[in-house]
Amino acid sequence: MSSLTRQFPPDIDRVAQAMADAAREAILPWFRHATLAADNKLDTGYDPVTQADRAGEKAMRAVLARYRPDDAIVGEEFGHSPGTSGYTWVLDPIDGTRGFVSGTPTWGVLIALSDASGPVYGMIDQPYIGERFVGHSGAAHLTGPRGHGPITTRAARDLGDATLFTTFPEVGTAEDGRAFHAVAARARLTRYGMDCYAYALLASGQIDLVIEAGLNAYDIQAPIALIEAAGGIVTDWQGGPAHEGGRAIAAANRQIHAQALALLQSSLT
Amino acid sequence: MSSLTRQFPPDIDRVAQAMADAAREAILPWFRHATLAADNKLDTGYDPVTQADRAGEKAMRAVLARYRPDDAIVGEEFGHSPGTSGYTWVLDPIDGTRGFVSGTPTWGVLIALSDASGPVYGMIDQPYIGERFVGHSGAAHLTGPRGHGPITTRAARDLGDATLFTTFPEVGTAEDGRAFHAVAARARLTRYGMDCYAYALLASGQIDLVIEAGLNAYDIQAPIALIEAAGGIVTDWQGGPAHEGGRAIAAANRQIHAQALALLQSSLT
Repeated sequence: MSSLTRQFPPDIDRVAQAMADAAREAILPWFRHATLAADNKLDTGYDPVTQADRAGEKAMRAVLARYRPDDAIVGEEFGHSPGTSGYTWVLDPIDGTRGFVSGTPTWGVLIALSDASGPVYGMIDQPYIGERFVGHSGAAHLTGPRGHGPITTRAARDLGDATLFTTFPEVGTAEDGRAFHAVAARARLTRYGMDCYAYALLASGQIDLVIEAGLNAYDIQAPIALIEAAGGIVTDWQGGPAHEGGRAIAAANRQIHAQALALLQSSLT
Repeated sequence: MSSLTRQFPPDIDRVAQAMADAAREAILPWFRHATLAADNKLDTGYDPVTQADRAGEKAMRAVLARYRPDDAIVGEEFGHSPGTSGYTWVLDPIDGTRGFVSGTPTWGVLIALSDASGPVYGMIDQPYIGERFVGHSGAAHLTGPRGHGPITTRAARDLGDATLFTTFPEVGTAEDGRAFHAVAARARLTRYGMDCYAYALLASGQIDLVIEAGLNAYDIQAPIALIEAAGGIVTDWQGGPAHEGGRAIAAANRQIHAQALALLQSSLT
């Protein structure tokens, strides 16, 4: 069933917005913080990124405890909390910690809500820029420096005219890297280093493909729901569901998804 | 002579700020513009990035015509205009056009003022985020989403604890790439894809090194003046002046500059 036709409780968007506001307040003071630049986890046993990550997840869990106490939670920092509603919040307070510690505004707060079929609500929030990308129920929106409005993925174009993103040139294992570069060799432009922000660019019609490997469920569930709501498609490298993590290909439309998937698969076999 | 002790006319900062404001107004409407996503230079003969680039440079030249008509200008789009004052404005209206067309807020408006000795004033402006990094006369400042304040480069740390940036993994020629990766292999973290924003991160104490090749003078003069004013150092890969373009290494301090330069040179010889 596509996210277009899924239903969920009417307070979900309001709760998710409150969670993102709380995470922003908890995390943003640590971004480009002097202590973050000076300290070194290995030297001192104190890791400010982990502090910010934990503070962000705690803030989001406090909102859920108040408004949605019966939902389950899976978070990067505090693991799994069971629930009874059939809904699970999947949270990554700081996706892109290497971007975070480098000062690049390419990290994000990832918030997803899943039912038994997979993610049905997704948000990527970039607190420093002040951009919030939200998708659910077959529509996606961006609120940012230039206001609020709908976003959709790009129309079909040939891979030879397409822009492809991933975070690291090595992508994952050696096999992962070879498969990625089989696609990159055919794309018009390949760019690196955007962390979860690449999925937000895909959802908002700026780029055509994001291909990554070695993902956790909490890295990809929010992008999946956001991109599907904006008109795109996200699968694993076999064309199946990607919401458990691992290898993912996110595409602006079915045509370029098929074209890139064929190249990935021919490289893997 | 270091930028610390250089003097220049007192209206320079005011004029440069007005230039950046004018460039922002000319360029920002084109960023993530639907036409930009749909059009294709090769298909239509019409290139909206070039339109934005030209509009930005024209807007900056109009400010100079009014306030500093005797200065020379070197711009990416409209070339060299001679002057009589001994000062030259070096302008790149959109540095990072590949980031610009991909929707990443990593491009910037670069404004430098040079005298016979090299760049003495430098600005990197990122209009979408609303960040302006300015350096001259031995001090640098950032105005951004969290207000206005001084910035300085990082204190010395070993390359093994350092963060290194460049825009593309291939860097430049095959020889350029090998030399870069000789440094990257020793750094703690290497990241890609930030265009001119990487120099702004270096100036503001977030990262330790930026190494690039194949640069034009207008790509590097603003970063040089900004980074020197913030306490860093920028040279070519021989340790000489970098303001004519080509290969550049920007470092947070002399110690890490020396360590990285030695690795570049041992790879090249």
